[in-house]
Amino acid sequence: MTSTEPDLGDIASAIDAFTAALGPDAVITDPEELKGFRDPYTYRESEQWDASCVVCPRSVEEVQAVVRIANEHAVPLWVFSQGRNNTYGGPAPRVRGSVIVNLRGMNRVLEVDEELAYAVVEPGVRWFDLYDALEAAGGRLWTSIPDLGWGSVIGNSTEYGRGYTPYGDHAENICGLEVVLPTGELVRTGMGAMTGSQSAHVYKHAFGPQLQGLFQSSGLGIITKMGFWLQRRPETYASCWLSFRGDDALKAVVDGMREFMLDGTVTNYPVILHGVTLDDDGNPSFTSEPDLWLARFALYGRSGVVDEQWAACERVFGAIPGVELRSRTYSGDDRTSHAGHEDRVMAGIPDMDILDLFKSVYGEDTAHLDFSPVGPLRGADVVETSHIVRDLYAKTGQQFFSGLMLSPRSVIHISTMFFDPHDEEQTGIVYENYSAMLQVMRERGYPIYRTSLHHMDAVADTFDFNEHALLRLNERIKDAVDPNGVLQPGKSGVWHRRYRDGR
Amino acid sequence: MTSTEPDLGDIASAIDAFTAALGPDAVITDPEELKGFRDPYTYRESEQWDASCVVCPRSVEEVQAVVRIANEHAVPLWVFSQGRNNTYGGPAPRVRGSVIVNLRGMNRVLEVDEELAYAVVEPGVRWFDLYDALEAAGGRLWTSIPDLGWGSVIGNSTEYGRGYTPYGDHAENICGLEVVLPTGELVRTGMGAMTGSQSAHVYKHAFGPQLQGLFQSSGLGIITKMGFWLQRRPETYASCWLSFRGDDALKAVVDGMREFMLDGTVTNYPVILHGVTLDDDGNPSFTSEPDLWLARFALYGRSGVVDEQWAACERVFGAIPGVELRSRTYSGDDRTSHAGHEDRVMAGIPDMDILDLFKSVYGEDTAHLDFSPVGPLRGADVVETSHIVRDLYAKTGQQFFSGLMLSPRSVIHISTMFFDPHDEEQTGIVYENYSAMLQVMRERGYPIYRTSLHHMDAVADTFDFNEHALLRLNERIKDAVDPNGVLQPGKSGVWHRRYRDGR
Repeated sequence: MTSTEPDLGDIASAIDAFTAALGPDAVITDPEELKGFRDPYTYRESEQWDASCVVCPRSVEEVQAVVRIANEHAVPLWVFSQGRNNTYGGPAPRVRGSVIVNLRGMNRVLEVDEELAYAVVEPGVRWFDLYDALEAAGGRLWTSIPDLGWGSVIGNSTEYGRGYTPYGDHAENICGLEVVLPTGELVRTGMGAMTGSQSAHVYKHAFGPQLQGLFQSSGLGIITKMGFWLQRRPETYASCWLSFRGDDALKAVVDGMREFMLDGTVTNYPVILHGVTLDDDGNPSFTSEPDLWLARFALYGRSGVVDEQWAACERVFGAIPGVELRSRTYSGDDRTSHAGHEDRVMAGIPDMDILDLFKSVYGEDTAHLDFSPVGPLRGADVVETSHIVRDLYAKTGQQFFSGLMLSPRSVIHISTMFFDPHDEEQTGIVYENYSAMLQVMRERGYPIYRTSLHHMDAVADTFDFNEHALLRLNERIKDAVDPNGVLQPGKSGVWHRRYRDGR
Repeated sequence: MTSTEPDLGDIASAIDAFTAALGPDAVITDPEELKGFRDPYTYRESEQWDASCVVCPRSVEEVQAVVRIANEHAVPLWVFSQGRNNTYGGPAPRVRGSVIVNLRGMNRVLEVDEELAYAVVEPGVRWFDLYDALEAAGGRLWTSIPDLGWGSVIGNSTEYGRGYTPYGDHAENICGLEVVLPTGELVRTGMGAMTGSQSAHVYKHAFGPQLQGLFQSSGLGIITKMGFWLQRRPETYASCWLSFRGDDALKAVVDGMREFMLDGTVTNYPVILHGVTLDDDGNPSFTSEPDLWLARFALYGRSGVVDEQWAACERVFGAIPGVELRSRTYSGDDRTSHAGHEDRVMAGIPDMDILDLFKSVYGEDTAHLDFSPVGPLRGADVVETSHIVRDLYAKTGQQFFSGLMLSPRSVIHISTMFFDPHDEEQTGIVYENYSAMLQVMRERGYPIYRTSLHHMDAVADTFDFNEHALLRLNERIKDAVDPNGVLQPGKSGVWHRRYRDGR
């Protein structure tokens, strides 16, 4: 994108048409009210990501109407489900002056199938809502959740968000989407494309190509329904912790955790944290101890199996010098007596506690920017990468706060840089430092898994194999599926040709 | 497609250009030799699926050269990796007269990462080759395999093929593709799109949309490299069997197996078989016992955990009237002393034994057509569906032979109809019966997961939600990504506009 004014089409006529189609209550144009849809984790006075208006459809038909009006008037739309992924842009649009499509009002849990362990949700359904629906349905199902319960299940999952149960790679739980295309047409992916299908939400693949991935973290469609797989409530759940200091222990814990994930002992998605400590109830607070690490994982299943698995963990991790182990065991039926956030989050019980921890840094409006490169899960490599990230992070002048999000073969090195979004200079330092970190990790071959509005183009640029062949393929598909370039221009660095020509 | 002659472009000039580019040894045009590339499981004298020539590229550059020549001369290409998915078309092209791209010569295992548990393979790599490479690398990794070891890892996995270990849903193991697009451009998907990426084969998602699914079971690209996730060799492996008779036991076993899969007791992909019996060594043979079912599953892990899990299976399945249980336990190190095919296949040790079983029906050339609708994994539903399929199958006049391929939430009801491919009438009856079965299961809301060349359009037609919106989206993408319509026209029912106009 050039710095010239973006192409917004005939925005005035579009607003009239939205109002006629959805009613005045569903269209927000008041400038003060629109400020509430800025990214709260960027400089608060910046108008860089301001919207022209917000429309609030309440049904699939209204979403289709919005998209058709946008096409008639060549107006760019930006979509959010709850708009809570604050470190990655929150509700704000990539192109200033876009129309925001706010899906918070489409918040029904359409189906809970306790026997087959899935739910079907609309985009406005929050983790809190899904949890409540599962408990109301009988309590035999657990959902995985991220740290904060206020976000959208669809938004988080399609943006590759993570939780901490065996279903913690949320995009992996998606089964069967209903999507409004940029042309206004309604499609269903996979097995749901058969009218009356009995298999829309139980079988993941498609007859022929599987198009689900096209609608993840993209501007190729507005998801209106999603099937989401859930965990059977276990007989026993054990919240397990390691604490240790220094590089040698970190290397050994990472390698040990990888082997336990690969051999099926640890089935959840563990986290290794730097910069926090826990009280006896498992509630975290910040610490300045420079070399302290905490590793968190969980065991689920029949009591005898959990006992066997914990014994194996004690043998392996207990043999690493300096590692302390702790576990707390709960009945799967227990949904109320967990010691604190950390024990709740691995049992799929949502809360907002982490936000309070963050607010302890710069007060109510504390913001943060997450730098999140992905690397292989090798102990030596994790230690080396962690030092590189920590040295880069130090340029913000802050205590290093980091979470390593483990999968069996990979790790996302998330480092969270705090700032006061009312402080323009401090905000600028953090955002610029991110750009510098990006280039260092690119040299190392560590790609970023998702990013803020500020850095979408810069991150997209790092995917440069064969002269950005993948980006060019994304652009070709974008031009074909969204002929007028109305949906989420610039999302994940993919621009319709209408916007590309100026670059 | 109409029944008029298909558009083959300037095939004669293309053959000259292939010969100039790849050398005469890499281009097969002899009519007798070309007959070897017919679908062996259709009527053997039919010329309906004959190719004009076969080209055999040996490198990515040669694949790109083939694709560019095809574009210059507007010639349709059909691609196979090993061409062994015989019940679904084998090596034969959908459009008669197409040029077959034979990738058997690109058969290198490019990488085995024992620590991170993945391999990178070329399309010609067979399950036999991958197994050998894993053993040579140290033996700490098991691959999941289908029943026959001669097929391509890439071909089988991208066509949603199934195996029987915890990694038995082969498409789920794909991580990082390299693909020659229909324009000849080379792309890498996901994290591999960064030059020098360390995460190409360890992290499944993408920055932005995930395009991997576009290249599964489609005509949108030729896969030249694929990352494939592997299982850590377990301490103990137990091959487990149930045998039982009648609907009540089938219903209870299905529901019990679902719960064990959902709670993590059974981590592999079980199968429930009808029409076979086993000798004491676990080798199958056909039986005419009308109500006999065999269920096969496996346990993997630390010995103490496997013991706990088997005890739970004995409690639940042993309480179902008439169910007999049996298990055989092996050390994970043991790769040679397994009792028979059935015990080997759940340990990832490939063989060709099942082909011998099939040849017992109509001799050396015995063919079969697999009917494979997908439904929910509910016991009552499985019993009812099984009766419907059996009644339809009976019209072939044969003994009912069926395998239910279980996942935690779904089941593929595969019924295998045998015939002599030299008998035109018998072959015709089986193919026509499939079409009738398809319509009945469509009414029931059971989609087909993959199918033969004969039935691709008919199956695609059953995905009819919103006037075939998904098919129309597939066509739009096809037209954009393959502008000259050269790659796999008609694959999975998706036709480029060049061929659509005649429909």
